[in-house]
Amino acid sequence: MLFAVRMSVALPPDMDEDVQADILTREKTYSQDLQNRGEWQQIWRCVGQYSNLSIFDVADNERLHSILWNLPLFPYLDIEVTPLARHPSRVSAS
Amino acid sequence: MLFAVRMSVALPPDMDEDVQADILTREKTYSQDLQNRGEWQQIWRCVGQYSNLSIFDVADNERLHSILWNLPLFPYLDIEVTPLARHPSRVSAS
Amino acid sequence: MLFAVRMSVALPPDMDEDVQADILTREKTYSQDLQNRGEWQQIWRCVGQYSNLSIFDVADNERLHSILWNLPLFPYLDIEVTPLARHPSRVSAS
Amino acid sequence: MLFAVRMSVALPPDMDEDVQADILTREKTYSQDLQNRGEWQQIWRCVGQYSNLSIFDVADNERLHSILWNLPLFPYLDIEVTPLARHPSRVSAS
Amino acid sequence: MLFAVRMSVALPPDMDEDVQADILTREKTYSQDLQNRGEWQQIWRCVGQYSNLSIFDVADNERLHSILWNLPLFPYLDIEVTPLARHPSRVSAS
Amino acid sequence: MLFAVRMSVALPPDMDEDVQADILTREKTYSQDLQNRGEWQQIWRCVGQYSNLSIFDVADNERLHSILWNLPLFPYLDIEVTPLARHPSRVSAS
Amino acid sequence: MLFAVRMSVALPPDMDEDVQADILTREKTYSQDLQNRGEWQQIWRCVGQYSNLSIFDVADNERLHSILWNLPLFPYLDIEVTPLARHPSRVSAS
Amino acid sequence: MLFAVRMSVALPPDMDEDVQADILTREKTYSQDLQNRGEWQQIWRCVGQYSNLSIFDVADNERLHSILWNLPLFPYLDIEVTPLARHPSRVSAS
Amino acid sequence: MLFAVRMSVALPPDMDEDVQADILTREKTYSQDLQNRGEWQQIWRCVGQYSNLSIFDVADNERLHSILWNLPLFPYLDIEVTPLARHPSRVSAS
Amino acid sequence: MLFAVRMSVALPPDMDEDVQADILTREKTYSQDLQNRGEWQQIWRCVGQYSNLSIFDVADNERLHSILWNLPLFPYLDIEVTPLARHPSRVSAS
Repeated sequence: MLFAVRMSVALPPDMDEDVQADILTREKTYSQDLQNRGEWQQIWRCVGQYSNLSIFDVADNERLHSILWNLPLFPYLDIEVTPLARHPSRVSAS
Repeated sequence: MLFAVRMSVALPPDMDEDVQADILTREKTYSQDLQNRGEWQQIWRCVGQYSNLSIFDVADNERLHSILWNLPLFPYLDIEVTPLARHPSRVSAS
Repeated sequence: MLFAVRMSVALPPDMDEDVQADILTREKTYSQDLQNRGEWQQIWRCVGQYSNLSIFDVADNERLHSILWNLPLFPYLDIEVTPLARHPSRVSAS
Repeated sequence: MLFAVRMSVALPPDMDEDVQADILTREKTYSQDLQNRGEWQQIWRCVGQYSNLSIFDVADNERLHSILWNLPLFPYLDIEVTPLARHPSRVSAS
Repeated sequence: MLFAVRMSVALPPDMDEDVQADILTREKTYSQDLQNRGEWQQIWRCVGQYSNLSIFDVADNERLHSILWNLPLFPYLDIEVTPLARHPSRVSAS
Repeated sequence: MLFAVRMSVALPPDMDEDVQADILTREKTYSQDLQNRGEWQQIWRCVGQYSNLSIFDVADNERLHSILWNLPLFPYLDIEVTPLARHPSRVSAS
Repeated sequence: MLFAVRMSVALPPDMDEDVQADILTREKTYSQDLQNRGEWQQIWRCVGQYSNLSIFDVADNERLHSILWNLPLFPYLDIEVTPLARHPSRVSAS
Repeated sequence: MLFAVRMSVALPPDMDEDVQADILTREKTYSQDLQNRGEWQQIWRCVGQYSNLSIFDVADNERLHSILWNLPLFPYLDIEVTPLARHPSRVSAS
Repeated sequence: MLFAVRMSVALPPDMDEDVQADILTREKTYSQDLQNRGEWQQIWRCVGQYSNLSIFDVADNERLHSILWNLPLFPYLDIEVTPLARHPSRVSAS
Repeated sequence: MLFAVRMSVALPPDMDEDVQADILTREKTYSQDLQNRGEWQQIWRCVGQYSNLSIFDVADNERLHSILWNLPLFPYLDIEVTPLARHPSRVSAS
């Protein structure tokens, strides 16, 4: 089941640099594990923004919430979730 | 070069049914041609909306504008364009 | 899988009365069939508005989209979809 | 009398962890007491958000305000209240 | 139980003058009946707007919805409903 | 001359408790003095919000500004002012 | 008593030209009468917009509403009203 | 050349009182110098707001920007600029 | 004196094709005359939109308003005007 | 390939003055290097705002993102990106 998710990051300006580096390292590992499993299908940077557009393929709403809630950056994210369905104009091969 | 494009359709409530059917047929053909060429990479329906989220992979801004401007549904579309770049957390294989 | 859906109705001011009555009758039948099946769990009127707040319990995103897209009132609806998950404070019995 | 209430939580990034844990424990107890009494009928997590959608069944506006004002998390909540009424399409059994 | 209600009127520019005059006459009678009963406690014109701010004192949400839904101008109204409660700073006499 | 005024309070999360208690005490006294004089005609709590809806009956714009500017809570308020006029549907007795 | 008023005009695209010319002529006469009386103190065109920013000096809210409500263009206007007061930094002579 | 400028002030809640008093004194002197020169033609307080509506008469865009950028309160201001032109309904004498 | 102007076009869906073609031809001629004179310095299409971003270099506000007001497409345009000034980081040669 | 970029600066009110001066110096050098290379074609100050409107001419989305992400002021910027295309009314010489 597919969802488009837009995540925008807002780190506090006075955040400790080591704390920040640690969160970002854990965020990257967390994201790549889910990419390797196939649940986090796509991730793109939005040009000029500290934000990404991602496509998730998950079993259900519970699983998507669990993934997003446990993001190391979650407390600093503004998140928009758009449930997706098959489009009738989509060509079969893709 | 990748772009996310969200298109929302608003057909006039009194549109002639044959005119509408013709536009929708041409829109589907137009979209599928571009999907087959690889420029219109992805198209999903947004759940509960008469709108889609699409990913385009085009040579440049001019090409993207030309594609969107010539959509048979263009006069009835509200379009949002988001330029995309590679995300540093993306795993290499995908 | 649960979703909250808010639907707001905007009928054209010059709509033919018989056409309107027919759509509303079909809408009610359509809604009640889905309520009886258990997929449309709840429907409330929002006070002072021509809109409702509904809870759907469906198999997946595809099924929710199919239900909403086929609403007789769909061309006249503004729809907001919110995917829901279990809340950690929810008491077990409810 | 039914109300839909959406509550979004925004904790200060530098909140003391013990203070936070204490508030969250008290919030959960407070919510579950009201759920057990039947006034807080439903609570769902909104996917990907630190927010919930709840349904309250209370005697009147005063009671709803008293419940919300005394939430341990109240100073950190953005709250939207929607009064609900019976929908004419609702099937009798539900 | 008190509610503040803001109603903004948007009549179609090509509305038949007799139809309009009839609706406005019925709206006034309808409003004054409810004022005389005490349910429509206050009505003020918002300066420079075709809109009013009203205070209703009704038994419950169902009654408020029934009053608003049956306004002769309802199809042409944009309505905002704000449930009110007693304010702790209110002096007892007022 | 009547005005509707909506005031929303946002106290800094780290405000000293004694300072806060002092401001709130002075705010209440200030409000009740103006209520007793008849200039602050009505004050209601908006359900679920740290905000109020008030009706002022003042000599002119200068007087209203002077009242609002000198509210002890003024630095923490978001204020919306709506000038009101007599509504043509208002019944004479009220 | 001073008010800033911003009026934005939206004429229906299919308005009869004679009707339009008549309304605009009456609007100009109406405005100039009030300017000559001193109640409509200032009127400026907002650059690139079919809208104006005006300053009114009127006896009270009732008078301002009466002036605006009777504008020949009123049914086609979106109006914003801002009550003004003396600014403490204003130099005495102006 | 005329411009309407709306300035809204937001001072940090923990600003040092002497610093604040000094800025406000310099702001007043700065504003009054420009009023005396005729470039800052009008300044009104917006009722109930820590904001003003002003009319500037300046040589060009560069001059307006220079005036606004050098306001002692500039770092704490939200500023909206509206270029103005002569209105065709304006009476000649005013 | 420089201004950025964003113009978005919304033609009525039922506009006569000849009328539309005539307006668009006149719009193009009008625009190119002003480009040749140097007052309409730049015009770009916004990708995927029926809108443009333009830079004007004009004598004053009156001139800019006169240019925009007389655009053949003016009744169908939504226009945003942003006055520009020299940026301190701009290199001298450009 | 052209992009319009609007950057709005919001520096924390308690930023160390030396840190701020250093960032602003580096920002200016960074911007002027890119102007000299021809990638940052234009930069204008928006009148009365701590923001600029810029035109970039870059190879692709990746290059634009890299430029913006590495701005010394990036953590303090709100950025809007608008992809541009050739306008059909543009005269050939400009």
